[in-house]
Amino acid sequence: MEKNLKKNPVCDERCPVRASLSLLSGKWTLMILFQINRNVVRYGELKRAVTGISEKMLIQELNMLVENKLVSKEVYPQIPPKVEYRLTELGLKTLPIVDQLAQFGLENLV
Amino acid sequence: MEKNLKKNPVCDERCPVRASLSLLSGKWTLMILFQINRNVVRYGELKRAVTGISEKMLIQELNMLVENKLVSKEVYPQIPPKVEYRLTELGLKTLPIVDQLAQFGLENLV
Repeated sequence: MEKNLKKNPVCDERCPVRASLSLLSGKWTLMILFQINRNVVRYGELKRAVTGISEKMLIQELNMLVENKLVSKEVYPQIPPKVEYRLTELGLKTLPIVDQLAQFGLENLV
Repeated sequence: MEKNLKKNPVCDERCPVRASLSLLSGKWTLMILFQINRNVVRYGELKRAVTGISEKMLIQELNMLVENKLVSKEVYPQIPPKVEYRLTELGLKTLPIVDQLAQFGLENLV
C-alpha cells in the first residue's frame, strides 16, 4: 500500500530536473565543468584533460557553456593567443552535481 | 599563483565522473531515474510522467537501465500485461545526483 504514497509530480517543462538536464545532459558537459572546477584553465589544458573529445566538440561545448553563463572565457590579445576559461558563479553551483557523480563513480564503477 | 595549485587529474577511462556519465548522461536517463525514485512504477505511469519522451526512446532507455542494473523490471503474466519498474540498490545510489540536479534547477532555472 505505502509503495505509491509519495509520487513525484509529472516531469514537464517546469520540472527542475528537466531544466537542469536541458543545460547539463550533453555527453561531455559535466566532464568539462568537472575539469575546469575551481581553476582557471587554458584551452590546451582542457583539450588534454578531457581525453577523447574532438576539437570541434570541445569548442562547441565551451561555446554552449559560455552562452548559458556557466563558464566565462577570457581572450588575451597576444601571439600566440591565450584563452582561459573559468566557472561563473552559476557554473560553480553545478559542482555539487559533479561531486555526486564522482562519488557514485568511485563507489560503484571504477 | 594559487589559481592552479589544485588541478584535477586528467579525465580518462579511470575518471569516476566519466564512468558515471557513461551510464547516466543520456538526455532522459536521470529524468527517468528521478521519476521512478523510491516508487514502484508501471510503464504507463512513466510514459505519462516523463512528458515528451517517445515510446521507442522510453523502452530503449528502460532496457539500458535494466541492463546496467540500475532498474529492475517485473512482468506480471496477466492480461492486459502489467510491467513494473523500481530502482535497484545501485539505482537508488543515483538519487543524490538527481537531488542535486533538482536543487540546481529549483534555485537557478525554474
